[in-house]
Amino acid sequence: MDINKPQKVTSVLPKRRQDVLRWDGWGYKDCKFVCEKERVSFVGDRYPISGRMDNFRDWARGIFNVDLTKYNPAAVQPTTFPKAVRNEVFLRGLSKNGIDYSDDGMDRLVRSHGQTLTDVENLRKHKYKRIADVIVWPNCHDQVVQIVELANANDVALIPVGGNTSVSMASTTPAIHDRTIAVVDMTQMNRLMWLSEENLMACFEVGIIGQDIERELGKLGFTLGHEPDSHEFSTLGGWIATRASGMKQNRYGNIEDLVLRVKMVTGNGVLEKQFTAPRVSIGPDFDHVIFGSEGTYGIVTEAVVKIRYAPEVRRYESLVFSDFETGVHFLREVAEQQMQAPSMRLIDNIQFKCAMLLDPVANWYTGIVEALKHFYLTAVCGFDMDRIVAVTLLFEGDAENVTQHMQGVYAIAKKYGAVKGGEYNGRKGYTLTFLVAYIRDFAWDLNIVGESFETSIAWDKCITLCANVKACIRRECERRGIKYFAVSSRVTQSYDAGCCVYFYLLFKHLDIPEDSLKLFMEIEEIAREEILACGGTLSHHHGVGKLRSKWYPDCVSQVGVGLYRAVKKELDPKNIFAAGNLVRQEQQQQQQQEVNKT
Amino acid sequence: MDINKPQKVTSVLPKRRQDVLRWDGWGYKDCKFVCEKERVSFVGDRYPISGRMDNFRDWARGIFNVDLTKYNPAAVQPTTFPKAVRNEVFLRGLSKNGIDYSDDGMDRLVRSHGQTLTDVENLRKHKYKRIADVIVWPNCHDQVVQIVELANANDVALIPVGGNTSVSMASTTPAIHDRTIAVVDMTQMNRLMWLSEENLMACFEVGIIGQDIERELGKLGFTLGHEPDSHEFSTLGGWIATRASGMKQNRYGNIEDLVLRVKMVTGNGVLEKQFTAPRVSIGPDFDHVIFGSEGTYGIVTEAVVKIRYAPEVRRYESLVFSDFETGVHFLREVAEQQMQAPSMRLIDNIQFKCAMLLDPVANWYTGIVEALKHFYLTAVCGFDMDRIVAVTLLFEGDAENVTQHMQGVYAIAKKYGAVKGGEYNGRKGYTLTFLVAYIRDFAWDLNIVGESFETSIAWDKCITLCANVKACIRRECERRGIKYFAVSSRVTQSYDAGCCVYFYLLFKHLDIPEDSLKLFMEIEEIAREEILACGGTLSHHHGVGKLRSKWYPDCVSQVGVGLYRAVKKELDPKNIFAAGNLVRQEQQQQQQQEVNKT
Repeated sequence: MDINKPQKVTSVLPKRRQDVLRWDGWGYKDCKFVCEKERVSFVGDRYPISGRMDNFRDWARGIFNVDLTKYNPAAVQPTTFPKAVRNEVFLRGLSKNGIDYSDDGMDRLVRSHGQTLTDVENLRKHKYKRIADVIVWPNCHDQVVQIVELANANDVALIPVGGNTSVSMASTTPAIHDRTIAVVDMTQMNRLMWLSEENLMACFEVGIIGQDIERELGKLGFTLGHEPDSHEFSTLGGWIATRASGMKQNRYGNIEDLVLRVKMVTGNGVLEKQFTAPRVSIGPDFDHVIFGSEGTYGIVTEAVVKIRYAPEVRRYESLVFSDFETGVHFLREVAEQQMQAPSMRLIDNIQFKCAMLLDPVANWYTGIVEALKHFYLTAVCGFDMDRIVAVTLLFEGDAENVTQHMQGVYAIAKKYGAVKGGEYNGRKGYTLTFLVAYIRDFAWDLNIVGESFETSIAWDKCITLCANVKACIRRECERRGIKYFAVSSRVTQSYDAGCCVYFYLLFKHLDIPEDSLKLFMEIEEIAREEILACGGTLSHHHGVGKLRSKWYPDCVSQVGVGLYRAVKKELDPKNIFAAGNLVRQEQQQQQQQEVNKT
Repeated sequence: MDINKPQKVTSVLPKRRQDVLRWDGWGYKDCKFVCEKERVSFVGDRYPISGRMDNFRDWARGIFNVDLTKYNPAAVQPTTFPKAVRNEVFLRGLSKNGIDYSDDGMDRLVRSHGQTLTDVENLRKHKYKRIADVIVWPNCHDQVVQIVELANANDVALIPVGGNTSVSMASTTPAIHDRTIAVVDMTQMNRLMWLSEENLMACFEVGIIGQDIERELGKLGFTLGHEPDSHEFSTLGGWIATRASGMKQNRYGNIEDLVLRVKMVTGNGVLEKQFTAPRVSIGPDFDHVIFGSEGTYGIVTEAVVKIRYAPEVRRYESLVFSDFETGVHFLREVAEQQMQAPSMRLIDNIQFKCAMLLDPVANWYTGIVEALKHFYLTAVCGFDMDRIVAVTLLFEGDAENVTQHMQGVYAIAKKYGAVKGGEYNGRKGYTLTFLVAYIRDFAWDLNIVGESFETSIAWDKCITLCANVKACIRRECERRGIKYFAVSSRVTQSYDAGCCVYFYLLFKHLDIPEDSLKLFMEIEEIAREEILACGGTLSHHHGVGKLRSKWYPDCVSQVGVGLYRAVKKELDPKNIFAAGNLVRQEQQQQQQQEVNKT
């Protein structure tokens, strides 16, 4: 099954994405949590969850002291927009080359942000100071080359975007006021260029979104296997620029493991290895200059990726452990034995409870079953319901291998006193990943601010990190008089040498959400300092963007920053890729001034 | 079992390496093939092979028409050496900082070359034009920093070396005549700095050689698992600078997979990520600027590597297939099912025969056994003895996993009509790897030039590549009137997307070995062009060095070369790391002139 000619892919998302996606938050317009007459439910049929959520509501009400009568989901779509800085020569150049663009206000707005709470707040309150002046839609590599030439010639700033799902403010329009900012929306470049079954390789234009990749490959019997939480909306190019990681990295690897060859249009020509090979020793591998460049060196246009045959079997499972520490030790031993399931995540007690409750209102039967489970876990296993945690698992492969793999993992789990939690809970845990951002937006409607942040850490520091960061957050909340809050952690990826940890903080405090958000940002910053002090890293896969750029120099040292700048100067001498990520905006501007002087 | 303090490691190799190693070729002084009274034998007891090799001799005599009476192993150790370009200020600076150095002729000579045939020929015939002026032995990271400062201040060129085993002329002293060339011998920096069992990480000074790493880790119950063919003599730092690959990469990964953190002293400060983590998304990963930099950006001093528990079981096995093509298809399916044994190599018919014959003279019993095997393979299996090939396998792990893994591999082998070749042949194939360079040097003594060169290639082009390159070499040999030659290939590493292929060419032609060598170089160059034309790469793991630098720009494009240079200028503004690898010497000199002008 080889493909030798470019194949058009019809995306589930239209070019006018605002027709299907929310303009003021995460996800599909037709899917959301709603609160009516103090009843919470999830509407929409895109996810295997729907209906009333009374248990969840009661639990959340208990923790956050929420007043459901104050539910306020309304945000008014703007009708006026910041005045565009127009560059007529640039626009004429686009037209001349037949390159599609728009200066419609909503087109500009929905591509000028990411998905941090700050982005969402700015959208809802119309507080954005700067948005894109024009949106450009290239339809092939050559058009990107033309756009870059035009930008170089006319001092236009280019911001490449895919799904605008960044949570580092990498895709948030930077505060540049003296130049036209053109956002290059890559989503119309989404063809499958070729596919080789013998080599298990496929070449895509990188504007293709995750769910389109899997659907198209699935039709042909293949899978890519890269599933970040944003997978429904984010693009291959975004993953490359962010150095993304997926939930199934244990089996398929991270984005840098999956990509064999990548093409980037820089401000100084096309950067691309001139061969497609499994592995080489030909000097420094400059693909790694592309991974993680966050739009500041150029625009990624095409990538050759490894693919695999779609697995015969997908099995969800879950395991319950007495406490978080035991769960971490279990994951560590699984990693040491290199027995990781494709996805394997440890959720702490709060998330465990939350997941249990995030079911439609329990009926009589499930009530009985839950009571029996409770009895079994506490009376028979001696577990404390306020301490137990769960590991959700996903196995993939042919039936025999999956069975063998599961037996191997269970044998290790047994040593750590695990109780099987069943397939249903495993699958639910996996599904909930895609709902986290919907919950966050719903919480916001109830005046609860909530957000996650992640890190990676060596195994020996994982438990201390989780304890210290949680303690730090509690302390900071209490110091600020925040009575109603929840802090939680999960381990989402396992490696030989360590793991990825997510923290979640939610609280309800002030009546003005934006003031709560300010508090949140303060606390998150202190928590990040604590993470770094505990040996954690600035980011496992979210990237640096603008949100975390203040810490970038400390992570890579001044020699690293110098190297970043030298590469930037070589690849983008006119600083057209002025997103201002990684190295702070003011530093970029300084560099720009130096360029202008010479 | 944690180690928190630096541990001195006593190397099997002394600081005066010429006391134990040959100065004029590969390997230990006390191990070699010799020919006495037309009898060939291997002396020395470091390898599980010794004694007379009558079968091998007869086979080689048949192919190469060797006149054993013309065996000439003698090379006269020089007593005079090229005059050193002295830089007194630099030397005084070394002394002042307590840094050890030598300007002894043999000390200089044995660190001024690599292990290509050209290097060996130059040594034996005293034809080296330029050797190191001084050898410097730092004993810690800080001394390297001091050496680099002194070199920057005094316009001294620095060439870092480890075991001088390079086969790309990367460690061959470049033709710089106006500056002192100091070779920085890293082998005295070989401490185990710390080890963490919980994280399965260890930090080494990178001057440690492969066999010392494995022995020291072995004592503690661990292994690194990186085994390039040069593993007995090459260093961790050399592997990093070369972007090396080991025989067991299927299980342990290549060097870039094994190294978690690396420290390099550049001409502009120390480049090092400021954290030790399993994986991050913090901008471009500049470690990949260090991997493959071939001594041209700086000196690697320390590295944190992943380690594993030493396997409970090591099992060698071998499989016999009807022909090379079938062997490739087998490897491809094993890769597709991700069932690769830690080491798994396909040798073609010539190497198969050669390996069979490279046993001490067969006795009556083995003669019978061999005849029976021959009968079985030809009459029962229908194999053609002039076409059969073998795959040698090494399995590692606990007993149960190894058994399971072997069963999985055998199940695939069965589909391809394989016959088990037994443990003895598997082990022998593995051992022979370490003897290849000894054979090459011995052949040279018999006026046969022989050398290998490698590439990596996508699966679908592997068979065509092997056929075309062999045909090309045969054609070029015949065109030159070379009657006695052998050309052979093996597949040494398997990946999802392709494999690594080695080619071997040996011939006997002219009575003057150096003229034969010139012919060899011509043919190798044409073969390399053929490799590239067939979609193969410039190198899988040997690197570019000086030998293959003419093709470097075509591999990375001019944008890539520009990027290489921009990084070079940033990290080494005074071009003290003037080894002249990757980008050709004349280009480096041009750059140097530009530096001098400014």
